[in-house]
Amino acid sequence: MQLGEGVEWALHCCSVLALVPAGRTLSAARLAEFHGVPGAYLAKHLQALAQAGVIHSVPGRKGGYRLARPAADITLLEVIDALEGGGPVFRCTEIRRRGPARVAASEYRNPCAIDRAMQRAEEAWRAELGRMTLGDLLQELSVSVSPVAIRKTATWFEEAMR
Amino acid sequence: MQLGEGVEWALHCCSVLALVPAGRTLSAARLAEFHGVPGAYLAKHLQALAQAGVIHSVPGRKGGYRLARPAADITLLEVIDALEGGGPVFRCTEIRRRGPARVAASEYRNPCAIDRAMQRAEEAWRAELGRMTLGDLLQELSVSVSPVAIRKTATWFEEAMR
Repeated sequence: MQLGEGVEWALHCCSVLALVPAGRTLSAARLAEFHGVPGAYLAKHLQALAQAGVIHSVPGRKGGYRLARPAADITLLEVIDALEGGGPVFRCTEIRRRGPARVAASEYRNPCAIDRAMQRAEEAWRAELGRMTLGDLLQELSVSVSPVAIRKTATWFEEAMR
Repeated sequence: MQLGEGVEWALHCCSVLALVPAGRTLSAARLAEFHGVPGAYLAKHLQALAQAGVIHSVPGRKGGYRLARPAADITLLEVIDALEGGGPVFRCTEIRRRGPARVAASEYRNPCAIDRAMQRAEEAWRAELGRMTLGDLLQELSVSVSPVAIRKTATWFEEAMR
């Protein structure tokens, strides 16, 4: 089981979009350039983020993307759910209702204990991702990224904002 | 992102194997019959469980499978890792090292904050699954499964153990 590469791309893009000043945007092409990823693939993921209300698409020649809300109000979970659909990772197919020990449908009053255990674990995963916002992420990035990389990013960013 | 159906099958099979008396086994065919799943597919998953040391394969005409250790000593995480390989769900491909803001390799002293956040969430998921044993699961099943289904399971089981 693995998350798609889109999740990594989306989290990086949202971190960069968190730096965009109010009233401005960054184009899909610029985001692809900054991350060195194929534009067509990235565009698909950006559209998913826009559809989920994580980022906002501004149309027009000077248009592009910006975060739909302040970075402190967008959780990592929202970004991941936008890309992955938000459905459960473990999907119970109720195999308990097959085979020689199956009983009448009315006997399955309680959800399967196996499904419950798996969903508890997913809730722990989701809770952790739901606790962290893009704002928190930006703060962690600001102290963990090397000053040289921050300077290069700032230079690129100024150019992109012109 | 979704776990394979093998995880559901394996957790159900391990719950049934937990009922097998000491010195006895249950065949792959019997396990497939009980769960109403295709034998060939299930065999593959049982082999993965055996390879990971979760279940033990006893060769011979009267052979079959049994849990490799007491149910209270096997966690759900071990079962899932046996099937899914145990690798991280989020795989950081270090896209921060691409694009115009990339810097010398020596500048990437800290792991990417995005990867760290994702791994923290996975640790929460793994911790939850690592806390729960097949013994706990059996206890939950014994109080949540309907008495009718328990009787039918017991009848099938007696027959299978003959």
